[in-house]
Amino acid sequence: MSLLVVGTVAFDTVKTPYGSAREVLGGSAAYFAAAASYFTPVRIVAVVGEDFGEAPMRLLGERGIDTSGIEIARGKTFRWAGEYSEDLNDRTTHATHLNVLETFRPRLRKEDVGADRLFLGNIDPALQAEVLRHVKPGLSACDTMNFWIERKNPDLKRLLAQVDGLVINDAEARMLAGEINTVVAAQRLLGLGLRFLVIKRGEYGAALFTNGHYFAVPAYPVERPVDPTGAGDSFAGGFMGHLARAGAADGRALRAAMIYGSVLASFCVEDFSLRRLLDLSERSIEERARRLRGFLSLDEPTVS
Amino acid sequence: MSLLVVGTVAFDTVKTPYGSAREVLGGSAAYFAAAASYFTPVRIVAVVGEDFGEAPMRLLGERGIDTSGIEIARGKTFRWAGEYSEDLNDRTTHATHLNVLETFRPRLRKEDVGADRLFLGNIDPALQAEVLRHVKPGLSACDTMNFWIERKNPDLKRLLAQVDGLVINDAEARMLAGEINTVVAAQRLLGLGLRFLVIKRGEYGAALFTNGHYFAVPAYPVERPVDPTGAGDSFAGGFMGHLARAGAADGRALRAAMIYGSVLASFCVEDFSLRRLLDLSERSIEERARRLRGFLSLDEPTVS
Repeated sequence: MSLLVVGTVAFDTVKTPYGSAREVLGGSAAYFAAAASYFTPVRIVAVVGEDFGEAPMRLLGERGIDTSGIEIARGKTFRWAGEYSEDLNDRTTHATHLNVLETFRPRLRKEDVGADRLFLGNIDPALQAEVLRHVKPGLSACDTMNFWIERKNPDLKRLLAQVDGLVINDAEARMLAGEINTVVAAQRLLGLGLRFLVIKRGEYGAALFTNGHYFAVPAYPVERPVDPTGAGDSFAGGFMGHLARAGAADGRALRAAMIYGSVLASFCVEDFSLRRLLDLSERSIEERARRLRGFLSLDEPTVS
Repeated sequence: MSLLVVGTVAFDTVKTPYGSAREVLGGSAAYFAAAASYFTPVRIVAVVGEDFGEAPMRLLGERGIDTSGIEIARGKTFRWAGEYSEDLNDRTTHATHLNVLETFRPRLRKEDVGADRLFLGNIDPALQAEVLRHVKPGLSACDTMNFWIERKNPDLKRLLAQVDGLVINDAEARMLAGEINTVVAAQRLLGLGLRFLVIKRGEYGAALFTNGHYFAVPAYPVERPVDPTGAGDSFAGGFMGHLARAGAADGRALRAAMIYGSVLASFCVEDFSLRRLLDLSERSIEERARRLRGFLSLDEPTVS
């Protein structure tokens, strides 16, 4: 099944206790698409500046990602710079230059309409809603962040009544629901009209809430995490990628998708930028998925 | 199988955003024993002061807990007072009065020797080792805290080479291993000679590490947590209680024990002190265990 992602493509400058990277490929749509590309054909709708260049475009293209929906606008590519704490759990943003993102309006082509699966990355919820209205996908999910929760709350709530799913961070879920307790927060968010809600918990994994059901998946344990940037977007990419591949979104498919989300996030953090994500094999993905299923099994797997 | 716990019995004064409780029954051994009492006969070895009184002793006795090993020493019972943050994740200690605990040396009777299962609650690791040497149990596990990690590190390391398992908080596991990454920390701790390691992660559940295997259990989602005091000890009680009931400690038994640990911790936080823990039914425990297994299942349970 076809999967369309609308989001950001960026140049990131990142410092972690394990090293640093300058002006490297990043952005929610890039991480998402790279992760999802192992499961299904992916198309990106995004904007970059004239300085983007051919090399990063080629990197994405080599993974079979359709980049023809990435608009090249006058101006510079969106840039983010930040630094992570010793345990990688906290980050400080040093600079955010929206550049071409400031006036971004997703341009949809005829072939984008009716995509089977749509993921609305973290952009203005009014734009997310506009895309959703045009694409009319078989299944849709979105992400968001504190900035939009504070500044565009009514738009965001309207969007949530229209999408099927929300894939969001722990802290942002609580903020959006106005409730500290995750269980109560989840119920409130489902009450806005969502069919499913994925709450990402960083190194503690992620939880899936649907009406009357709950599923939790641990983070795949990584010995040498290097850079957590994009882990949440990679989770979403693995998750939606599997849902596209499965051609289903019932309880069983959603649970399997959580496994793949966790697996792709675990690869993402093993290197800076999309380096590790762009260099995986289906075999290595399936191997981690198998091990992760073993971490949930009530019987100890015979092979660890 | 018989289960012996050595630890503290205390009077706690607790304030949380949901209320407060003054001079109520607490302490690691009390929480542990209450949780374990639903699975197997439990004996407590601990010390209290002359002010302890009959009422709390009767509360424990009514759960079938053998309190005859609780020594009544001259002086006052150990007291702790503290307050929890809005989200219940952080706590500030207002007062710790060791009182009779200061000179506590566990008194073991003939009948304590050869107990099938032994849990060494959070006391001086030299005393924990002494108890272990005398009891020579079929299976043993211990807890510890930052105070002992800092002050009695060599004693603690020696103890860890002798017990079968360690049940410990996330932050303390990292501190003890001298390593921020949980996976690497777990490997180091197993390397000290442990057969199994349980890392408790509060609202994120707990993880089991054995040689070559990993298992993660989410916290049972509680809508109205009131007081997290004793949740970790209740986890340990449910965990060791199930291991005693099962009469086994293989991979399958350890995984099932994690489920019961999580279930008992979830009941513990629903009220102050041991109120909820002392008032459970086997049916309500099994019901939560069934639901929790469903949260791990790759197939959505037919009844939620």
